[in-house]
Amino acid sequence: MSGDAQNKSDEVWMREALALARAAGERDEPPIGALIVHAERGVIGRSGNCRIEQSDATAHAETLAIREACAAMGDWRLEDCTLYVTLEPCPMCAGAILLARVPRVVYGAANVKFGACETKLRLLDPAIGWNHTVELAGGVLAGECAAVLSDYFSRKRLNKNHEGTM
Amino acid sequence: MSGDAQNKSDEVWMREALALARAAGERDEPPIGALIVHAERGVIGRSGNCRIEQSDATAHAETLAIREACAAMGDWRLEDCTLYVTLEPCPMCAGAILLARVPRVVYGAANVKFGACETKLRLLDPAIGWNHTVELAGGVLAGECAAVLSDYFSRKRLNKNHEGTM
Repeated sequence: MSGDAQNKSDEVWMREALALARAAGERDEPPIGALIVHAERGVIGRSGNCRIEQSDATAHAETLAIREACAAMGDWRLEDCTLYVTLEPCPMCAGAILLARVPRVVYGAANVKFGACETKLRLLDPAIGWNHTVELAGGVLAGECAAVLSDYFSRKRLNKNHEGTM
Repeated sequence: MSGDAQNKSDEVWMREALALARAAGERDEPPIGALIVHAERGVIGRSGNCRIEQSDATAHAETLAIREACAAMGDWRLEDCTLYVTLEPCPMCAGAILLARVPRVVYGAANVKFGACETKLRLLDPAIGWNHTVELAGGVLAGECAAVLSDYFSRKRLNKNHEGTM
């Protein structure tokens, strides 16, 4: 695929991830969405954040999407797959990406507090010497991905302040 | 608890984790075991490795034990809990420990290739500036924990060599 076609395709998939993020926000979870696209089979895993709904600290969108994709493939290795996620993965999710041997990761907004790919840590840096290398593309539809999150947190703060005055 | 009593108690729980590790080995998974002990409720999560059985890259013993413990507590925060695991956690599991706010982690053998607590990386280092601090105790029954793993891999290699000559 040419560079332009790749960028176009990445944006199309990121819009799908954004729809999953918005759906998570409507369930009152932090609006983050992820999907796993297999080169031939298309989407084989998709999820929004479910930490609150499932009372499970590990229920991040990308980890749930990885688990769904592993189940779909019947294999713990996700070869020929790309992970799309609206927010830069945290350490747990970056670790899951390495374990599942995901070849390529595309994310939207930078994660200032917990970003483990480029912002806070560089867990996927080949110089660390893992047994797997991940191709990384950050900042795809970054503005939209960040806006969905900041709208959600502004609304939460507003509701909290209103609760406080009642 | 005094230091001696704490050490004694840690060894008792690590023997339980070792039993889970051995049971995983019998299912032909890398023999690693983990359990979560709540200060008042006792064991609220336990698992061996299930990556191969479940075809799930994220099915490490400690992540599965964390998920079980979250379900038992109905909460994604594992306050007043200690995680015991026979092998030093990898990046994904160290990340899950941070996300679940596990206050204390006790591990057995050092993980030379993927250890994310002290050996390969120091992901739980308070200097990184996470929003949670983990008390860490490594090397509890380290010899026994390492022996269970090395016996398993020796046996695997031996079987492979025999297969090769047949």
